[in-house]
Amino acid sequence: MHAQPVTLAEQAALVPGYWSPTVVARLNDYDVKVVKLAGEFVWHTHDDTDELFLVLAGTLTIELRDRDVSLAAGQLFVVSRGVEHRPVADGEVHAVLIEPAGVVNTGSTGGPLTATSGDLAG
Amino acid sequence: MHAQPVTLAEQAALVPGYWSPTVVARLNDYDVKVVKLAGEFVWHTHDDTDELFLVLAGTLTIELRDRDVSLAAGQLFVVSRGVEHRPVADGEVHAVLIEPAGVVNTGSTGGPLTATSGDLAG
Repeated sequence: MHAQPVTLAEQAALVPGYWSPTVVARLNDYDVKVVKLAGEFVWHTHDDTDELFLVLAGTLTIELRDRDVSLAAGQLFVVSRGVEHRPVADGEVHAVLIEPAGVVNTGSTGGPLTATSGDLAG
Repeated sequence: MHAQPVTLAEQAALVPGYWSPTVVARLNDYDVKVVKLAGEFVWHTHDDTDELFLVLAGTLTIELRDRDVSLAAGQLFVVSRGVEHRPVADGEVHAVLIEPAGVVNTGSTGGPLTATSGDLAG
């Protein structure tokens, strides 16, 4: 099957539930995912990889231990590997995540919000 | 220095000239770049990597040898490694490119449109 263009806002709106990313494209061994976020996630760290956030709708605060990073639609931020962070969505947020395939969303923290990454949509 | 949020549309608007990407963030060994495109690029292939395009403004056609992929603002497409392609911008297009650092924009084709990747903005 041919790869198809991905309309990010549409695909994000189709994701069922929160904190459960759906893979919409693959870039080498990286997954491009869309996700809906609401409320507070857990503090966690990815020891082996950076993680890219791009906000599509809403306002996302990425709390770091020494500061907060506020992201509106169209803003991108990369959390460096090893940096503890907690995403907090003010209302509902739609976002793109890019990171190597197989990264666990809760990092080394685990717990009930740990997601199994969704399949390629469409 | 702390990593800062990147406002993609603003950063793209600041890029001097066409077909000359500016790096705005780093994700592990990948560069996140913004670029202005206008008119036809050259046919080229990246033998060793996929290449992600995300359109921020305007309409970008990625010509492949067997079809054309048309991308509007908010649409993303990954050109698979080894697939010959030619970006064609209908008027001015602003876009994000994500690919491993050091990838040459004209692939194995070379020529006058070959860019040296810009430094991290800001």
